Amino acid sequence: MNSFGRIFRVTIFGESHGPMVGITVDGCPAGLSLTEEDFTTDIERRKGGTQKGTTPRKEDDKPIFITGYFNGKTTGAPLTILFENKNTRSGDYDKIKSIPRPGHADFVAHQKFGKNEDYRGGGHFSGRLTVCLVAAGVIAKKLLQNISVEAKITEVGGEQDVEAGLQKAIDAKDSVGGIVECTVKGLPIGLGEPFFDSVESVISHAVFAIPAIKGVEFGAGFAAAKMFGSEHNDAIVDASGKTATNYAGGIVGGITNGNDLVFRVGVKPTSSTPKEQESWNWDTEQIEKFSVKGRHDLCITLRVPPVLEAVTAIALADLMLLEQQIKRVI
Amino acid sequence: MNSFGRIFRVTIFGESHGPMVGITVDGCPAGLSLTEEDFTTDIERRKGGTQKGTTPRKEDDKPIFITGYFNGKTTGAPLTILFENKNTRSGDYDKIKSIPRPGHADFVAHQKFGKNEDYRGGGHFSGRLTVCLVAAGVIAKKLLQNISVEAKITEVGGEQDVEAGLQKAIDAKDSVGGIVECTVKGLPIGLGEPFFDSVESVISHAVFAIPAIKGVEFGAGFAAAKMFGSEHNDAIVDASGKTATNYAGGIVGGITNGNDLVFRVGVKPTSSTPKEQESWNWDTEQIEKFSVKGRHDLCITLRVPPVLEAVTAIALADLMLLEQQIKRVI
Amino acid sequence: MNSFGRIFRVTIFGESHGPMVGITVDGCPAGLSLTEEDFTTDIERRKGGTQKGTTPRKEDDKPIFITGYFNGKTTGAPLTILFENKNTRSGDYDKIKSIPRPGHADFVAHQKFGKNEDYRGGGHFSGRLTVCLVAAGVIAKKLLQNISVEAKITEVGGEQDVEAGLQKAIDAKDSVGGIVECTVKGLPIGLGEPFFDSVESVISHAVFAIPAIKGVEFGAGFAAAKMFGSEHNDAIVDASGKTATNYAGGIVGGITNGNDLVFRVGVKPTSSTPKEQESWNWDTEQIEKFSVKGRHDLCITLRVPPVLEAVTAIALADLMLLEQQIKRVI
Amino acid sequence: MNSFGRIFRVTIFGESHGPMVGITVDGCPAGLSLTEEDFTTDIERRKGGTQKGTTPRKEDDKPIFITGYFNGKTTGAPLTILFENKNTRSGDYDKIKSIPRPGHADFVAHQKFGKNEDYRGGGHFSGRLTVCLVAAGVIAKKLLQNISVEAKITEVGGEQDVEAGLQKAIDAKDSVGGIVECTVKGLPIGLGEPFFDSVESVISHAVFAIPAIKGVEFGAGFAAAKMFGSEHNDAIVDASGKTATNYAGGIVGGITNGNDLVFRVGVKPTSSTPKEQESWNWDTEQIEKFSVKGRHDLCITLRVPPVLEAVTAIALADLMLLEQQIKRVI
Repeated sequence: MNSFGRIFRVTIFGESHGPMVGITVDGCPAGLSLTEEDFTTDIERRKGGTQKGTTPRKEDDKPIFITGYFNGKTTGAPLTILFENKNTRSGDYDKIKSIPRPGHADFVAHQKFGKNEDYRGGGHFSGRLTVCLVAAGVIAKKLLQNISVEAKITEVGGEQDVEAGLQKAIDAKDSVGGIVECTVKGLPIGLGEPFFDSVESVISHAVFAIPAIKGVEFGAGFAAAKMFGSEHNDAIVDASGKTATNYAGGIVGGITNGNDLVFRVGVKPTSSTPKEQESWNWDTEQIEKFSVKGRHDLCITLRVPPVLEAVTAIALADLMLLEQQIKRVI
Repeated sequence: MNSFGRIFRVTIFGESHGPMVGITVDGCPAGLSLTEEDFTTDIERRKGGTQKGTTPRKEDDKPIFITGYFNGKTTGAPLTILFENKNTRSGDYDKIKSIPRPGHADFVAHQKFGKNEDYRGGGHFSGRLTVCLVAAGVIAKKLLQNISVEAKITEVGGEQDVEAGLQKAIDAKDSVGGIVECTVKGLPIGLGEPFFDSVESVISHAVFAIPAIKGVEFGAGFAAAKMFGSEHNDAIVDASGKTATNYAGGIVGGITNGNDLVFRVGVKPTSSTPKEQESWNWDTEQIEKFSVKGRHDLCITLRVPPVLEAVTAIALADLMLLEQQIKRVI
Repeated sequence: MNSFGRIFRVTIFGESHGPMVGITVDGCPAGLSLTEEDFTTDIERRKGGTQKGTTPRKEDDKPIFITGYFNGKTTGAPLTILFENKNTRSGDYDKIKSIPRPGHADFVAHQKFGKNEDYRGGGHFSGRLTVCLVAAGVIAKKLLQNISVEAKITEVGGEQDVEAGLQKAIDAKDSVGGIVECTVKGLPIGLGEPFFDSVESVISHAVFAIPAIKGVEFGAGFAAAKMFGSEHNDAIVDASGKTATNYAGGIVGGITNGNDLVFRVGVKPTSSTPKEQESWNWDTEQIEKFSVKGRHDLCITLRVPPVLEAVTAIALADLMLLEQQIKRVI
Repeated sequence: MNSFGRIFRVTIFGESHGPMVGITVDGCPAGLSLTEEDFTTDIERRKGGTQKGTTPRKEDDKPIFITGYFNGKTTGAPLTILFENKNTRSGDYDKIKSIPRPGHADFVAHQKFGKNEDYRGGGHFSGRLTVCLVAAGVIAKKLLQNISVEAKITEVGGEQDVEAGLQKAIDAKDSVGGIVECTVKGLPIGLGEPFFDSVESVISHAVFAIPAIKGVEFGAGFAAAKMFGSEHNDAIVDASGKTATNYAGGIVGGITNGNDLVFRVGVKPTSSTPKEQESWNWDTEQIEKFSVKGRHDLCITLRVPPVLEAVTAIALADLMLLEQQIKRVI
């Protein structure tokens, strides 16, 4: 399903080249102040227009509140926000309809939905919809109040420096991946459940909703596999549960322990690369060389931080509501 | 919640030192043959009794079918399987009740559930319950028929060889972590959804239900972050969707693409280590040194493969039922 | 939550006097042909404009497909349909803001959502949103193919004849209630589950989403309470499960039995009545007399049949998908 | 699915003639005191052994707490309670295996689950499982604290007096139905949602999980269909929302309004009647006369009140948790 959350439940809809994309947030507490300006920063961060390595497609991306919003506040009813798709050029995509692009959903979409999928720009399988995630994330962040959720890029194209990584891509005329780290400060102890709704389960579920993410690790993560227990165990140093180290990344037994929640995601290189590639041609029934035209990011990682913060905030807002750490009416 | 799955829904219950642990599988198709012997192999693989580095606690672990089972087959009604806890020695745990063990859930459980938690052996937060996951996994694997799900250890304590890694732990009188890789062959194209129910989302959700797992990566995973797009994109080489490489790990756009599903998990070192450690003492209100007695694994990774296969099979059986790739009556 | 269904999941949003109301259908099979004309009949049936006893508020009610729809067919992605609210006159409602209308949600909405609710025309608590249910129902009916879902009014204001019942209301300058019966022909045997997801459970859940419905009964319903077992039991007369009578209304043990599914709902009189009424005035803190102005139906029952068919079809489409009686790709 | 509830989630399992039936309650707050005695009254009320018109089958029905329970209190982990089936005589049922009993699930179970169903005593389709509902209801009632949930029989076999109704059945050598009314006092204002999770939706969903119930009506219910609006509207008489009448049964706009929640259910006559009946014989492929032997109730209505209270309490406990009116840790 295209929904996430048990109380703060987000439903996403839309296609890259349809008239609009949108999101419905059900279960949002009543009385939360919201202005268009609240959305500006994160939506601008998600846009790539001004940064080298991101797509020249530009959208206004003004949130249109159509339901659940009255007199500047949420009403407690389902909150639906739409974004118009103005700047689409479907023509770009017609040429490659007969060749499923490697690394894209073209092939699987065709198999899953038959001849019915909206193939323009990836249809529903489009990074365009992440603007909706960002919008829901803005709301979730406001609900989280004194809790901060911050994601930053730690690596691009294997380089610690974003500029260097991008230059590598430009020089190679290719796309590159990267790593993004997210840190949440101020969480209460006790969110999550021991098994199927461990905090790692819930956050990773949300995180892999972001296109292009192929790995997630909490705290020391994969490095923990090389550590000794005496080294990895975070000694508890006071009655509040503060630990001397934070190799657990703020989660023990699937439950938040009050220390910073820290996790990293691995982002694959953008599937659309300027390089010539090979793929199966459905019409000619043979492997053919082709190039992706369209407008694309050299490094989708650059746009990931606000989206990663958003899905993290969405997941945490839901966990907070479940644990009654956020009130139903504000 | 302690449930997972939308059609093939698994609910887990029990504590390390209660009389029994168990699992209810709702939505299992009717008519699936099941014998006690079907469970033997995976349950034995999960036990550590005969392998160095695993706990000497021994349980019979015979599955007791109490509902949903008649004349050797599933009936379509909820299927409940119990396992007795015979070999418990709660006394081991009384001594450390006042000190929350680092890396364990003692501290968070106390905060989350107040003074009510069952602290014996970690209570509900116990690896003991993974026998239930294994049992549900046996059923799921039978449903998957011609699809194979196999997990193998690729690293222990930083060593490529299991023996060497264990020896390292024994020599250091400490516990160690490891890495396990899971490969699924024979999946149809089209499982999963583009956003919140991507195959990565669903599998990672299930995987992080296993205690001690701190990272998951699909296909090239974190290594993809260092690759160029032209390198990472798997060229489609025939009409069936077969790809020349498999950096995507069998999932594109959140959907299975018919190639092998491959992912790896990072397992932290067992929290219970023979080494002396420090933690906060709730009674004396100061940091104190202590040692964990009890019976524990030096390397919980050794037991992970059958559990990882189990949760993977559970997740895939549900996705298969959702996509009508498994019949409701067999 | 404002969602319903496990596979064919419908999410409703909007307010009486907001810019738009809408619905998202997730899990709708791909490849279903849909035209605007498919919606005309049921949407017109739901409108009251031409019938005596219904509100003069007129809306175009043209469905606007914004997502999940391409080249005249559903794509398998979430399908969102919007309806504009053009013909709103919020001014009508300002006058009575200080008096919660008896029989309306004014009082409870105020308590539940604090000062934040959209009080115009009942806000989210509005019959206006039933146009969205009707739209989702049109889709569900198309999926049900050879299954017919038909609701008809059997009683208005205690009269067997609709005209007589309405005249009674007009003569009394008051509103009246009624009874609507729904019959579904052509259902397969085996939908539903024995306990919590009995067909009665699922349909009644959906039915009580329709404002003003206060009772539901299946087959003989409440009359069964006065019957003998030998009389109520429907004798099975052939191998297909056909029964001589149908007092069970097509459901036995919570499961469809292949005979017609028959149930009735009781609809209360429209809460907005032309009569002068009394209620508590929040401002003056005393009981006061007042009259509801606005535009309202004398008998909301007249609009119920297409809405009742819609929620029934929605519930059945979901049950059919769960039992794999409808294909995921058409 | 055989589960109900979003936070306080109940999963039921078992068969009439299997070794045990049981229930798992997930999401129950930690720290609730529970003793075996808490269950005695309602479990005894549900048993029919001492009352004329009920089955002579007698069970100890002692609740066996196997998980989620420690030192006399709930731990916050899944709480599983089992009941042994001691007093089964499957032999009674073998004789009629070839004839699906009218009014029973025999026919539909056979169609739905193939040849795999447990046909003994109705298998999973058995009133036996209502002991599990009662057990979960006992817990829910304790959570509801100052809220009382009381059901009473208002009619048996068309008679206002229980004795008279039963005598009618005995005289006619037939089974009879009845009506049960449930009243909940002390509920807060604001439970429920306007559409799909209206209080009527949620309660009716739970109520129709009880075998033999064929109708439900809230407040004036079907009688409302014959009333004028000015008559049915309950005038609000003070700032607390108290109403002069209670035709709405305590629910307006799908939301509790703080007045008594009142609803009635119609119970069909027990399907197993001493009378000779006709049904299709699968083996001989013709209609045949037969009699149900076994042990059965003449009037299942007599056992309904504690079960109806139970499912009502379960539904309300969940709504209360959703609205944060019950604490997660007590």
